[in-house]
Amino acid sequence: MTCRVAIIGAGGYTGVELLRLLCRHPGVEITCVTSLEDLGKEITRVFPSLPKRLASLRLENLDVSKVVEAADLIFTALPHKAVMDIAPQFIAAGRKVIDLSADFRLKDVAVYERWYSRHSAPDLVKEAVYGLPELYREQIRSARLLANPGCYPTSAILALTPLLRNHLVDVKSIVIDSKSGTSGAGRALKTGSLFCEVNEGVKAYGVGTHRHIPEIEQVLSDQAGEPLTVCFTPHLMPVNRGILSTSYARLLKPCSSAELHELFAAFYRDEPFVRVLPEGELPNVSAVRGGNFCDIGVVSETRTGRAIIVSAIDNLVKGAAGQAVQNMNIMEGFEEDQALQVVPLFP
Amino acid sequence: MTCRVAIIGAGGYTGVELLRLLCRHPGVEITCVTSLEDLGKEITRVFPSLPKRLASLRLENLDVSKVVEAADLIFTALPHKAVMDIAPQFIAAGRKVIDLSADFRLKDVAVYERWYSRHSAPDLVKEAVYGLPELYREQIRSARLLANPGCYPTSAILALTPLLRNHLVDVKSIVIDSKSGTSGAGRALKTGSLFCEVNEGVKAYGVGTHRHIPEIEQVLSDQAGEPLTVCFTPHLMPVNRGILSTSYARLLKPCSSAELHELFAAFYRDEPFVRVLPEGELPNVSAVRGGNFCDIGVVSETRTGRAIIVSAIDNLVKGAAGQAVQNMNIMEGFEEDQALQVVPLFP
Amino acid sequence: MTCRVAIIGAGGYTGVELLRLLCRHPGVEITCVTSLEDLGKEITRVFPSLPKRLASLRLENLDVSKVVEAADLIFTALPHKAVMDIAPQFIAAGRKVIDLSADFRLKDVAVYERWYSRHSAPDLVKEAVYGLPELYREQIRSARLLANPGCYPTSAILALTPLLRNHLVDVKSIVIDSKSGTSGAGRALKTGSLFCEVNEGVKAYGVGTHRHIPEIEQVLSDQAGEPLTVCFTPHLMPVNRGILSTSYARLLKPCSSAELHELFAAFYRDEPFVRVLPEGELPNVSAVRGGNFCDIGVVSETRTGRAIIVSAIDNLVKGAAGQAVQNMNIMEGFEEDQALQVVPLFP
Amino acid sequence: MTCRVAIIGAGGYTGVELLRLLCRHPGVEITCVTSLEDLGKEITRVFPSLPKRLASLRLENLDVSKVVEAADLIFTALPHKAVMDIAPQFIAAGRKVIDLSADFRLKDVAVYERWYSRHSAPDLVKEAVYGLPELYREQIRSARLLANPGCYPTSAILALTPLLRNHLVDVKSIVIDSKSGTSGAGRALKTGSLFCEVNEGVKAYGVGTHRHIPEIEQVLSDQAGEPLTVCFTPHLMPVNRGILSTSYARLLKPCSSAELHELFAAFYRDEPFVRVLPEGELPNVSAVRGGNFCDIGVVSETRTGRAIIVSAIDNLVKGAAGQAVQNMNIMEGFEEDQALQVVPLFP
Repeated sequence: MTCRVAIIGAGGYTGVELLRLLCRHPGVEITCVTSLEDLGKEITRVFPSLPKRLASLRLENLDVSKVVEAADLIFTALPHKAVMDIAPQFIAAGRKVIDLSADFRLKDVAVYERWYSRHSAPDLVKEAVYGLPELYREQIRSARLLANPGCYPTSAILALTPLLRNHLVDVKSIVIDSKSGTSGAGRALKTGSLFCEVNEGVKAYGVGTHRHIPEIEQVLSDQAGEPLTVCFTPHLMPVNRGILSTSYARLLKPCSSAELHELFAAFYRDEPFVRVLPEGELPNVSAVRGGNFCDIGVVSETRTGRAIIVSAIDNLVKGAAGQAVQNMNIMEGFEEDQALQVVPLFP
Repeated sequence: MTCRVAIIGAGGYTGVELLRLLCRHPGVEITCVTSLEDLGKEITRVFPSLPKRLASLRLENLDVSKVVEAADLIFTALPHKAVMDIAPQFIAAGRKVIDLSADFRLKDVAVYERWYSRHSAPDLVKEAVYGLPELYREQIRSARLLANPGCYPTSAILALTPLLRNHLVDVKSIVIDSKSGTSGAGRALKTGSLFCEVNEGVKAYGVGTHRHIPEIEQVLSDQAGEPLTVCFTPHLMPVNRGILSTSYARLLKPCSSAELHELFAAFYRDEPFVRVLPEGELPNVSAVRGGNFCDIGVVSETRTGRAIIVSAIDNLVKGAAGQAVQNMNIMEGFEEDQALQVVPLFP
Repeated sequence: MTCRVAIIGAGGYTGVELLRLLCRHPGVEITCVTSLEDLGKEITRVFPSLPKRLASLRLENLDVSKVVEAADLIFTALPHKAVMDIAPQFIAAGRKVIDLSADFRLKDVAVYERWYSRHSAPDLVKEAVYGLPELYREQIRSARLLANPGCYPTSAILALTPLLRNHLVDVKSIVIDSKSGTSGAGRALKTGSLFCEVNEGVKAYGVGTHRHIPEIEQVLSDQAGEPLTVCFTPHLMPVNRGILSTSYARLLKPCSSAELHELFAAFYRDEPFVRVLPEGELPNVSAVRGGNFCDIGVVSETRTGRAIIVSAIDNLVKGAAGQAVQNMNIMEGFEEDQALQVVPLFP
Repeated sequence: MTCRVAIIGAGGYTGVELLRLLCRHPGVEITCVTSLEDLGKEITRVFPSLPKRLASLRLENLDVSKVVEAADLIFTALPHKAVMDIAPQFIAAGRKVIDLSADFRLKDVAVYERWYSRHSAPDLVKEAVYGLPELYREQIRSARLLANPGCYPTSAILALTPLLRNHLVDVKSIVIDSKSGTSGAGRALKTGSLFCEVNEGVKAYGVGTHRHIPEIEQVLSDQAGEPLTVCFTPHLMPVNRGILSTSYARLLKPCSSAELHELFAAFYRDEPFVRVLPEGELPNVSAVRGGNFCDIGVVSETRTGRAIIVSAIDNLVKGAAGQAVQNMNIMEGFEEDQALQVVPLFP
């Protein structure tokens, strides 16, 4: 049976990425795409990369009752704050929601309100499931409201969880230095996102203040079994897609690169979308471009007693739309890799 | 029944692109990949973008008898000159060959020898079929030796053929100004292909001397029904993939943009991989990245009496590996778009 | 004696480029910088590339009387339409104006109004001098109102003038295919200027309708001694800076590459900023990045009887700010290359 | 009096950068440029960005006695190992040497031999002066053999020295995460330096093994007054120029961002080439492109008790050729910023 889906916020980069993946999904029919701009325009004119057979889809204004009627499952690809007001209506109407914003990721409303703003649907926060399949697959199966993880958190959590689960590192020593492609900043008009500002530039931003910090800390604390904080610094890179996170943690006792590698390889052995690279190799975002993979390389630096884990994802795929489709597949009982077998594009 | 294929020259950009596409083809088994370098190395180590299930493929030295034994159809992704010596052996052994080099594209051996070098298999030249499906689909069906078109020629020929078939333009007036991504230069080590030499640069090269000139002229002359020459200038762009060709020709009589658009839309109506854009819109290589499409925009510039046709392809897909797979599909009786439904990756 | 200068519209890319060049000019004092945004902000905070000693300059709102008081010469780096209303006031107050917009480039007000919009200062149009020093140096010396040439026109006019002055080509055959870096689109917020839209993309735009067409035609007609039209197509490239123009024209009689080269070398022998490359070499925008040069390569394509001239400039330097400073130097009696000896930055 | 200089290894990116800067130096005459390739070729043909007046310089084979005759001061821009054999001859002949390789940076020959290879001139190592003017200006004045610092070390040492001199941080907690442009890999032919391999990619390399580690540790230990180790990870970015280093260290006692800023501003108050940015602002490599600056931004992250220092340099200028010229200026008694007043190029 076909799952009818709607995409709220289809005019952005996450929106077009959902369309790219979902239009090849044999179990899905895309019935509704909404946006604030380009209303009435065929989606194939807005994004000429999309195949002609999607031409009948036109961008619509968001009308909750129409969406509820048209779709069984709704992807919300909006900025935070915008989703908390509409998700309750979709849920109340019996629809499933996969939210790509930050509104339902933090379980502690007080934390959400400290880092973001007031929350208008605190009750729903409780039942939302954090959609990182490698860690929470069982809960995802029965989710009605799924909080799709942030891009930086996905890369950092997959890199550090095997160390924390096994209590190998000092939880006070974690430094995560992340480098992101520019699509992570979205399609909104900002001087800092202009080609000439980004191209040939490299910079850090949001040092100590980025809103993905509490998300990373929440999940890693859960995995470690104790509260922890992380020092996280995002950087902007002149590439369209990709996040490379270099995570540093002090080892509690000596552990060779070979041992670390064995640990990671075993931890992710059955995961279809985590590729632990051969020992001695390190990932490059160019090898995951367009694919739903998280590639991981591990090094034990014995001189300073640190584990250095390098992880690479495509921020729009495993960091957003691909992971959302993976979650949908789990929630709807499809094969987990349905529509996600796309081979990364290199070069 | 499964078609067993070999890729000769799998270590280059065309090689990895063939692997990306063919590994998703339900009717194909890749049995052999050869290279001059990285011998014995798993192909997934050479190209970590490829899926793990290809890990059993290792790069081998070229051994003609082993290839003949392993494969029913052979893709030769080598530089020109290298193929003319081995293709006859494959053909003699009853194998089909899809040659991505220039060795069998030019029907007149004298022309080949003037632009390239001496030809060692002139007899085979006669039976080779030029593999542009939009123009020569019937001949392709029964080809044993298929000459896969060059990247620049594909973009230029698809842009100009509707005008020439309908005798709308002065055949002496054709100027083709093409802009190519750097993967067109291949993976060989050349100072001019280094990142710092290409990035932030734009240049013309091979003005009046590029070897794709006789190929374009051969096919366009055939389509026009009269011999013609073209003024063709290639340029190098700092993008990985893509060719944008801007073709200029003087109209023999006035013809509006709307009329030109109607002509092109009708000409390519049933073609799965040529997308004539809505009137007034122009293509961007970013909308065909990773896909097998040729996007075309048309303008009639009444001030100077010229038709200006802008065409965009991904040089590695419709300009090389994708077109080769399309030709294989036709030759083997598969659906023509099998393994080619990949949606272009934007952004 | 020091020339006090003001920059109207200092918050854009042309503005920062004027500041980069002028702050090293020993005969100039920058006294006033205006903008619509970032009012009151130190220019070194807006553009941290600028040296600390400019920190006392703060962006101000445009106040004509204050500018007149502060400056002897005024650079107007605003969009077209904005200058025609203020330039008359500056001129009336006895100040010199170097206008980097299009408002005073077209001598025929009717042509301006057809391609742009109504003109509010038609009388001043007559006295404005078109500031291409290589062609109009004498008139520039005594200019009060200088119309600084457009970026595309500079590259195309310098490429074609030697051919037209010598009546070597068919004036009906001219095709100019130009490729521009993205800084040419300015610093305004447009979706099409976002990094992810431009990066890895190549496209044509404004085919047959770009406003630089009448400017090119006006100057080339003047140089040819007869009215002519050109077929001009601009393209957008993913580089910050640079225009490469490939100009095609049919030769009226055979002329070898060597002869063409000799002609160009002689024509520009005494020009400090035009570099005719050795025969057989073609320019790259990467060799003029940050410098005030126009590099030119020439080819005679005997097969099709065409001259192909490739010219490269930095659109922000010889195509805008650098040429403006060159014009100021001529108008003020400074050495023509004062502050323009900057060596291009490669790589 | 003019200082005659030679550049050994002028065909690489550091070579052309030395030429760009030195050709504008009023006290310098470039008399000799050597290379292994392009022998006899005019330097302006190898690097068409350079001004025509350098055309009389042709690349020569290295002939020590000719160099000694031609030059008073010699820049060696060769890979490590190549310099240790020739520098002694230049010094013995009474010439000064500024070595841009790693051969004379490490004071402990055993350390050099552990990280690099056997050293053939251990005696000269003792007298070589490490050329970071901000820390060792006095020693530089009288140097005969100057070891120009590595690019990564320059960015990291300038970032961390104010903290270490003041004993503000735990010396065991230092993590340096650096991102470099591709010119840092030089102009040698390597697959990993090809445009299509670097573009749209981001990767770490040399984790725990990069040869700049002992250099950073040597200088920081000297500044801290106690031996220390650092965890240093370099990354490759798709930009031509620039290093951004993000340095993390645990504060021994609380210290606000404002206090850190005050400390750094005071420390570098009189330095012409270190720009401590206003509090709250962070550097971007695009603001130092082509200039000799090190821009520094500081943050105290109170949540995790760490100082985060972000520093940006152009790896070819402050990280190589610019610093070499700065050292020459100090050694020769020129103004320290002579030929280095170049304003960075943005955008």
